[in-house]
Amino acid sequence: MKSSEVLQKDTSSKAVQVTSRRDFFRKTAIYSAGALSAASVLSPVSAKADDPAIINEAPWGTKLGDPVDKNLYGMPSPYEHNNIRRTHDLLSSGDAYASISMCPIHESEGIITPNGLFFTRNHGGTAHVDPNEFRLMIHGKVKREVVLTLEDLKRYPSETRTYFIECPANGSPEWRGPQFNSLQFMKGMMSAAQWTGVMLKTILDDIGLEKDAVWMLAEGSDNASNPRTIPVEKALEDVMVVWAQNGEALRAEQGYPVRLVVPGWEGNLNTKWLKRLEFSNKPWHSKEETSKYTMLQKSGKAIRYFWVNEVNSVITSPCPEKPWTHLKKGDMVEIEGLAWTGHGTIKGVDISFDGGDNWVEAKLKGLVLPKSWTRFSYIYKWDGKPLLLASRAYDDFGNVQPTIDEETKAVGVESVYHRNAIVTWEITEKGECNNVQIRKHKKA
Amino acid sequence: MKSSEVLQKDTSSKAVQVTSRRDFFRKTAIYSAGALSAASVLSPVSAKADDPAIINEAPWGTKLGDPVDKNLYGMPSPYEHNNIRRTHDLLSSGDAYASISMCPIHESEGIITPNGLFFTRNHGGTAHVDPNEFRLMIHGKVKREVVLTLEDLKRYPSETRTYFIECPANGSPEWRGPQFNSLQFMKGMMSAAQWTGVMLKTILDDIGLEKDAVWMLAEGSDNASNPRTIPVEKALEDVMVVWAQNGEALRAEQGYPVRLVVPGWEGNLNTKWLKRLEFSNKPWHSKEETSKYTMLQKSGKAIRYFWVNEVNSVITSPCPEKPWTHLKKGDMVEIEGLAWTGHGTIKGVDISFDGGDNWVEAKLKGLVLPKSWTRFSYIYKWDGKPLLLASRAYDDFGNVQPTIDEETKAVGVESVYHRNAIVTWEITEKGECNNVQIRKHKKA
Repeated sequence: MKSSEVLQKDTSSKAVQVTSRRDFFRKTAIYSAGALSAASVLSPVSAKADDPAIINEAPWGTKLGDPVDKNLYGMPSPYEHNNIRRTHDLLSSGDAYASISMCPIHESEGIITPNGLFFTRNHGGTAHVDPNEFRLMIHGKVKREVVLTLEDLKRYPSETRTYFIECPANGSPEWRGPQFNSLQFMKGMMSAAQWTGVMLKTILDDIGLEKDAVWMLAEGSDNASNPRTIPVEKALEDVMVVWAQNGEALRAEQGYPVRLVVPGWEGNLNTKWLKRLEFSNKPWHSKEETSKYTMLQKSGKAIRYFWVNEVNSVITSPCPEKPWTHLKKGDMVEIEGLAWTGHGTIKGVDISFDGGDNWVEAKLKGLVLPKSWTRFSYIYKWDGKPLLLASRAYDDFGNVQPTIDEETKAVGVESVYHRNAIVTWEITEKGECNNVQIRKHKKA
Repeated sequence: MKSSEVLQKDTSSKAVQVTSRRDFFRKTAIYSAGALSAASVLSPVSAKADDPAIINEAPWGTKLGDPVDKNLYGMPSPYEHNNIRRTHDLLSSGDAYASISMCPIHESEGIITPNGLFFTRNHGGTAHVDPNEFRLMIHGKVKREVVLTLEDLKRYPSETRTYFIECPANGSPEWRGPQFNSLQFMKGMMSAAQWTGVMLKTILDDIGLEKDAVWMLAEGSDNASNPRTIPVEKALEDVMVVWAQNGEALRAEQGYPVRLVVPGWEGNLNTKWLKRLEFSNKPWHSKEETSKYTMLQKSGKAIRYFWVNEVNSVITSPCPEKPWTHLKKGDMVEIEGLAWTGHGTIKGVDISFDGGDNWVEAKLKGLVLPKSWTRFSYIYKWDGKPLLLASRAYDDFGNVQPTIDEETKAVGVESVYHRNAIVTWEITEKGECNNVQIRKHKKA
């Protein structure tokens, strides 16, 4: 049972030799910011030897902290008060109910978003559903129509999978011209999580589908209900009926107690506060899919049932909120970003320093999962000169991000949806980071 | 750019055909709880046709919900108010400062814990460190001693990895006899997360280690400081200097702004509020590793530097907090649990229904990552008879969980640490779930 790595020793009374930080600076002369900077590879040291933060005793080092019962459900450090979702009048329907709240993806790390920061998009506000009154009706072209309680639903074998959810309007602030010099407002209509629930296929295998069941309607129990049509082929592929997110129950604003997760497809299909699934041989053409979530074209005609979120990427560090103003010429820095595709799996990401004339391959890092956020990274020595920094992702279905010009040529500027053109940041000599479209529009 | 899955259609004015749930029950006679139950495979339906939750309009279906600006940093649904960390006088040192707060692992889903529920163990309360005053001193037997600010630290290339952290006293309520009939209190001194930071090896490669640097001291900036000795071999293997947890900054109670993560090893080595790393050719024998985190043996001698959390597992559903009282004879149900090992990766989990006489192999599900929580599952048809339900995990280093008798024989009952014996639940005919040790002790 015991590890081979274990050292076996008797306890003894040897005194602890702990050098205090104060002593360290008094006794040694080796610490010199200048000397260290010259020798540094990746770690220029900005702390000075007379830095009060090193020399002085901090209050948290001398006094007791919070007792444990203050943390029964923990909250972020008060120092992180700026790391919140944000909304903007330009992005809502004139009120705070039919609105969107953008994820601070410039502060995101790894490939999931904490539940408190997951972006929200509601058509009629955040519903508070009593889980005891939750009922899921499954009917229409099924062999056995059922109404499931939450307890019934949780008796099915569960699965946990990591997927992003993205509003098809993500990036829309850029579509007719730039509106924001902010990553959060440009691309924050998405987040990612570990979802736990039952595969819809498991339920449908249990109750049986009629042969001509080719369409499914998903409807919420909130006042907006947002009925949406989904092909049965997708329902059987990877759609989940979900009750937990990142290890705990769904939050109210994410559809508590139960939502659909429709991996890689438009966020509005991921029905929150789920109430009803109906199966049919014809699509429903609901209001939301005839008047709203369509793709208006130059011709004046609209593409309906446009589901998949395209291959996409954006550099998150640097970004307008996280510039390089603290860097000096010659400093090494990690360029990092997020890539995602609703089709399958990210295969690679290229980075350009000159606005797209030349490209180098970035490294994918951490877990690379289908229909999930994928992190990319490039270690770079900045020579202090201005850059036009861009990323271009491609997936295992052969999809590649277009330039803004290619995108505009292909789909026009009539629809706000499904914009996945390459995003370019302008890095100035001072290390500032700006949405390059703003600079272009100012010049024009 | 566009998907082959896209249907292209013009928008039309076909009316939406949405059957209301009220209509559904009025028009159809197919819904009968009895008939459905008899036909059901996995989904007995507990909702009745006259169920008010189906027939009546719910307030959330007729009124606007919360506006978006109420959710800038979201909180769990008020219906989930019982899903919190809990502490107990038996588990603290007489106050709420040197104490532990247990994770509600009976409510956990998937393989990570949300930050608000991650277990906490503090020696002097939760410190609130000003990130602007954070300084990390790295000194001793290194080629270039440095003091890093948070900005310096974040310039290193980051990595994100999923690891559990477990207090070596996890399971200790069982060691001399059962104290709790509760999974949270028996095994909740652990949690798991996606950690983002820099590999310590990256920093050490940058600043250089002296050849005879074989031990590292890690020290926190809180009043308890908790100095602990870690072998350099481990520091170079997979130790991380971490600033983010599950996609956002560390919480104060997890060491904000920076902690160590020492994958698979005792939780107390994962130094929170990190201040100092010193390298030496000798271990420090600090107070915490001579007086406290040692493994007292029958002989009266103690094992010091006992780091690795053993291979372990527990069935989380059912458990005392999640019994089978809602199940009927013949119902199918998913038995689910968590397995983990500090050595490497979980290779398999067996399940016994008769207290360990016979075993069947469970399925590992979802991501199976080294030094991470791993979920196991077994679909079971319960005949309504009493069971003695147990799980037994094994890892890729050949470690297997012992029985309580084997464990007691091997290490005695003098130490509260590193208990990894098989946990057995007693399932009664009514579907109640109890810690079997309590039953045994009552009989004895």
